[in-house]
Amino acid sequence: MKSLGKHLLVDYYGCNSAVLNDPDLLEKHLKCAVMKSGATIIESTFRTFEPYGVSGIIIIAESHFAIHTWPEYNFASIDFFTCGVDVNPYYANSYLKTILLPEKIEIKEIARGIFSDRQFDNYHPSIHVDNTKEKKVV
Amino acid sequence: MKSLGKHLLVDYYGCNSAVLNDPDLLEKHLKCAVMKSGATIIESTFRTFEPYGVSGIIIIAESHFAIHTWPEYNFASIDFFTCGVDVNPYYANSYLKTILLPEKIEIKEIARGIFSDRQFDNYHPSIHVDNTKEKKVV
Repeated sequence: MKSLGKHLLVDYYGCNSAVLNDPDLLEKHLKCAVMKSGATIIESTFRTFEPYGVSGIIIIAESHFAIHTWPEYNFASIDFFTCGVDVNPYYANSYLKTILLPEKIEIKEIARGIFSDRQFDNYHPSIHVDNTKEKKVV
Repeated sequence: MKSLGKHLLVDYYGCNSAVLNDPDLLEKHLKCAVMKSGATIIESTFRTFEPYGVSGIIIIAESHFAIHTWPEYNFASIDFFTCGVDVNPYYANSYLKTILLPEKIEIKEIARGIFSDRQFDNYHPSIHVDNTKEKKVV
């Protein structure tokens, strides 16, 4: 079995709240995270909310990255959703955690679009699926 | 324990491939799905890819909805990520499946941002967390 996409759901607890409320910094660093993963930026949109919080989405050629922040909880939820074998969303996470400096990280890896080998063709390089994994890193 | 957000990861298999390659239709119906869930649209971005496929993201006041399609596999991956108690992402799914008519649906519900009751305050109405659920609906 193979999957079309690999989706990392990453929750950062205990971040620096000032960074979490700065859309320009978050956009800059999420774009850097895209590049670290080897993905290609198509379009980026970041919005702030009152009284706190930022939502940012980057459409990449390989699916999307997203971040939502709750500065009042020092919390950010981040999605690194990629397809293809030439990108590695874990590199994006490795970079972003050096910026947001979370005290605790929870990562779930979800395979998206699972097909048998024979259902695959040459249009999309596939990602080998081992399992849906759940990891906790403190 | 309570969570800040509820994230549904929904994979549709066996969809109508013509609809999956039509960004205008997909945007129209994903916006309808937002409204069905009770959420509020902030910004919407849809892009097409060569030779096939559409990526669409709608930032909502309550987080985001996203869709990525692989028409050549009759497949779509959809994210309904909401926060707050006034929205129900399952209503969005109930609507969208009547449009894309998948033969098989896989849904994973992931709680995002889990805190103890005492860590919550009045800024964000919380969602009660029962468990991380995995559901398969054929």
